[in-house]
Amino acid sequence: MRLGGYTGKIARVNLTRDEVKVEDLRWEWVPHYIGGKGLGFKYLYEELKPKIDPLSPENKLIFMTGPFSGTVVPAAGKYVIVTKSPRTNTILDTYFGGFFGARLKFAGFDAIIVEGRAKKPVYISISDGEIKMKSAEHLWGKGAFYTISAIKEDEGDAKTSVLAIGPAGENMVKLSSITADVIWNAGRGGAGAVMGSKNLKAIAVKGEGKFPIANEEELRKVVRELTEKSLLTESNIWAKTDGTPIIVDMSHTAGVLPTRYFGSGVFEYHDKINTDVVKAHLVEVRACYACPLACKRLVKVGDKIMKAPEYETLGTAGSNCGVGDFEAVTEFNNICGDLGIDTISTANTIALIMELYEAGIVKKDMLDGIEAHFGSREALLKLAEKIGRNEGIGKILSNGTRAVIQKFGVEAEKYACDVKGMEIPAYEPRGTWGMALAYSTSDRGACHLRAWAVAYDAFGKLPPRSFKEKPALVKRLEDLNSVKWSMIVCDFWLINYDEMAALLTPIWGKPVKPEELELAGERIWNLGRLFNIREGFSRKDDKLPPKFFKQPLKGGPTDGAKVSEEEFEKALDEYYTLRGWDNNGIPKEETLKRLGLTK
Amino acid sequence: MRLGGYTGKIARVNLTRDEVKVEDLRWEWVPHYIGGKGLGFKYLYEELKPKIDPLSPENKLIFMTGPFSGTVVPAAGKYVIVTKSPRTNTILDTYFGGFFGARLKFAGFDAIIVEGRAKKPVYISISDGEIKMKSAEHLWGKGAFYTISAIKEDEGDAKTSVLAIGPAGENMVKLSSITADVIWNAGRGGAGAVMGSKNLKAIAVKGEGKFPIANEEELRKVVRELTEKSLLTESNIWAKTDGTPIIVDMSHTAGVLPTRYFGSGVFEYHDKINTDVVKAHLVEVRACYACPLACKRLVKVGDKIMKAPEYETLGTAGSNCGVGDFEAVTEFNNICGDLGIDTISTANTIALIMELYEAGIVKKDMLDGIEAHFGSREALLKLAEKIGRNEGIGKILSNGTRAVIQKFGVEAEKYACDVKGMEIPAYEPRGTWGMALAYSTSDRGACHLRAWAVAYDAFGKLPPRSFKEKPALVKRLEDLNSVKWSMIVCDFWLINYDEMAALLTPIWGKPVKPEELELAGERIWNLGRLFNIREGFSRKDDKLPPKFFKQPLKGGPTDGAKVSEEEFEKALDEYYTLRGWDNNGIPKEETLKRLGLTK
Repeated sequence: MRLGGYTGKIARVNLTRDEVKVEDLRWEWVPHYIGGKGLGFKYLYEELKPKIDPLSPENKLIFMTGPFSGTVVPAAGKYVIVTKSPRTNTILDTYFGGFFGARLKFAGFDAIIVEGRAKKPVYISISDGEIKMKSAEHLWGKGAFYTISAIKEDEGDAKTSVLAIGPAGENMVKLSSITADVIWNAGRGGAGAVMGSKNLKAIAVKGEGKFPIANEEELRKVVRELTEKSLLTESNIWAKTDGTPIIVDMSHTAGVLPTRYFGSGVFEYHDKINTDVVKAHLVEVRACYACPLACKRLVKVGDKIMKAPEYETLGTAGSNCGVGDFEAVTEFNNICGDLGIDTISTANTIALIMELYEAGIVKKDMLDGIEAHFGSREALLKLAEKIGRNEGIGKILSNGTRAVIQKFGVEAEKYACDVKGMEIPAYEPRGTWGMALAYSTSDRGACHLRAWAVAYDAFGKLPPRSFKEKPALVKRLEDLNSVKWSMIVCDFWLINYDEMAALLTPIWGKPVKPEELELAGERIWNLGRLFNIREGFSRKDDKLPPKFFKQPLKGGPTDGAKVSEEEFEKALDEYYTLRGWDNNGIPKEETLKRLGLTK
Repeated sequence: MRLGGYTGKIARVNLTRDEVKVEDLRWEWVPHYIGGKGLGFKYLYEELKPKIDPLSPENKLIFMTGPFSGTVVPAAGKYVIVTKSPRTNTILDTYFGGFFGARLKFAGFDAIIVEGRAKKPVYISISDGEIKMKSAEHLWGKGAFYTISAIKEDEGDAKTSVLAIGPAGENMVKLSSITADVIWNAGRGGAGAVMGSKNLKAIAVKGEGKFPIANEEELRKVVRELTEKSLLTESNIWAKTDGTPIIVDMSHTAGVLPTRYFGSGVFEYHDKINTDVVKAHLVEVRACYACPLACKRLVKVGDKIMKAPEYETLGTAGSNCGVGDFEAVTEFNNICGDLGIDTISTANTIALIMELYEAGIVKKDMLDGIEAHFGSREALLKLAEKIGRNEGIGKILSNGTRAVIQKFGVEAEKYACDVKGMEIPAYEPRGTWGMALAYSTSDRGACHLRAWAVAYDAFGKLPPRSFKEKPALVKRLEDLNSVKWSMIVCDFWLINYDEMAALLTPIWGKPVKPEELELAGERIWNLGRLFNIREGFSRKDDKLPPKFFKQPLKGGPTDGAKVSEEEFEKALDEYYTLRGWDNNGIPKEETLKRLGLTK
């Protein structure tokens, strides 16, 4: 059955065969997986052979929009890339903001599926239904920023969106990211390396076409109502338009701001990197497609106009590296965007090096002469540059925490702060046990966006250093977000199932029940789990770094805090039970049956 | 004395002689006139011969920035054009939002002064200190949108700002405006016709340079503090980022929404043109340089992405033409932006035609076959197009209310709603006597931006249908705004003298006292008055249209309302007294002496 909200077309690009096929969307999957994360997971699960090398031509890159993309639904400007992660070997969904998603639909496609490997560097150019492969040999080795502007110029249209990798992705380093239209990034999970492995430098898209919406008049009515009642409300902190940097002070106050490689939850220079500092450097505000929140900020540092860092970058390259210097963190952020590396993972890998340096384990001569003290602006910037260019010591660091542990032969037990090989974001789990559970159960390794439980404990009313109610909370948020990321709605809209159903109904043109969506969320989460299980994952991987169990935090309201390992394991048991999974984290047959996931 | 915040250079372009001179800023004027409106007025007052024809080569166009332009001061992205108005023959300052002002300073200039008349159509290209005249013959006759994108492409830089006139300005019609970077407009007063009279199609500017700021660190500190305490506050309605369309419901509720050519203060279809409707069509949010408010909205209507109309357009092309149709008003707004005509004056001229049509005075055959009923979407759009292109009946209408009165020989007394030849904005003066006084005393003819008194009476606590306290209020706001528009701070920041002094101090690098600024405001206002007096203006011109004294409003909370003529005249007396002007509205010698305005 065809539904409104989709172009109904998928562009399948096989780079090995230099071949483009336009095929129909698998309509039978749509009611069950919606779009975005859900449909992306379904395509990848069905099409990928188990246990392939993520950097081989067998891996696929799925660029997927949702039913809200390109419509008047606000705060729905994002789009997703789904692939097998070269960092974690799990399934990966990683998101951009901006215009690419809307424009892909205007160009006539719900998704692009990229397969194989090109013989020489190419970029894909999509323009109003037409798909071409173009040479990117002249762009190979160039930064993402240059690449994006060069392609925009060649495509000759101010309304072209371009996503591109930098040298890091080309070198297939595991910290690599993808940059879109200069200011947006899909950071986590190494999707940039997958692009690089395919010799795919960039994708450009423009379009002016339409796609059907069942009842546009009714949709406008719902949008009008919900924008006022649910999105732009007094209680939604994101409606104040300051964006994520407001979290710096919240985290510091709650004692969950990672500081000096997860040594403390408070940072004495938090007010040098907080939202007020962003404001005092502001030169431009930008918004995603159809978004009234307009959270992106450009700032001027010295003579350079750059994107302002998001909270996760301020809390990792700032406090976690001990660098209380907004200008340095902004410069770091800019290097990451241009060279194409994930800010969270890069900053935390540098923070680890700083800890090893302070401990005397790593010396200056092992770091190409860099003195990597905590707080060193120079170390932060020079190491980021080396990581992004995969040069010198950067060749090790560019593959993250696990590579550093291996190289310097230090105990992972004592130093490594990652889950499933992915570095921890900027919420100190010893001060928010909700996040401890969220990190460990996340499908793509340590991630704050599957279940932002910190809002309910350290920033909310639940006791932060307890697992009480957390398993149910984490499950509920994971399911809800699976639906949100399938639609695709921004994190900044605290939307519920009723509201999503109300929006989807006039788009699809058939009544959508909130409980159907809730079930879809659970289905999508379980499908991701099935993918990971097929790759060999189970309870043994739903781990928290031992440091969080053993080493107490120092200073502030979380002074002395650790996570109780015993209680963590119990919480995991409870979480598995709530999910209908066995004690090893494998979904039971009855669960799969209930979700329609049995073959 | 040189002060921080300025490049110190003025680009003087003489089109007759095809000559560019770069000269020093008149530093001796800066402490007294600051920048923007103030300095622009001073240059024009000193350089222009009295009583010249505004459309002759003797008129000048001054594009002026302020000391905040291009700095981190928020909500200061505007810049001003000062010239002698071909609509009113008064002095004119008319403002744009966007990036042009900041970029002009980065290019090395505080101002551009354009003189003379080019032999053939040209545009001025300014790039990092270099100024060139380029042919615009290929662009003559083209719309502003096409012109802007063609020049941007030629100048080859995404960071080029372009302002341009459409066919209306070329034809020197009096309703003409100037459009910048597609979405910003300097609408009022006919500056587009002055550009057209000079054969100047456009100006392009780009730059990456610096200008000195005395104490950048201290400036950031003040910006940080004031952004939080004064700009982005709970009580500042503009900080909610919805922009001006929120006024539609406020005006309707207060009975001051002009409806069917100033026939009523309430509009039964107000909820078809209010801010909620804008939201339900939103596709993109834009901000001026360094502005966290991000008030500009792009909307999608049918397949077209267009700028959302501002309140003044919704209240004139919408309610005042009886058109309760957001899509039609947006389309109208788009036509005005592209052809280069002022939305307020154009819509009110059409509303007048609609009233004359309904009264049977003007017939279909006199309007090129258009049936101009109130509420006709078709009449609104077709007449706007004819005005913008100066075709058919548009040849009359394109010169506004006075031209219509003259053409159809109807009594101005009964029909004309203008002050000094400029059409009335979207606050019905019979419901806000504060605005009645503000319109009549405004330096550039009927204007809502000299003293937005409606905020204090119809939307505030003062009795709206009384002149009590209004003369002092109007004077206070006119002076304050004279300083704001000299800095140049956006209307959306309800900033006071103390705050402006706190910002200017670290920029200038010398202590600025609030009372100095207050005096500067009064000085600037009086200088505008002196210009107008030199042109022959006096009390006889500080008039309100007789309709507002004689014809009562119909319906809503302002049913039956008129302005008392006797009380209006008394209020004007009081205003003159407060200003230190004589009974004829001429500044007394002692006043000029106090303000340092005697020769």
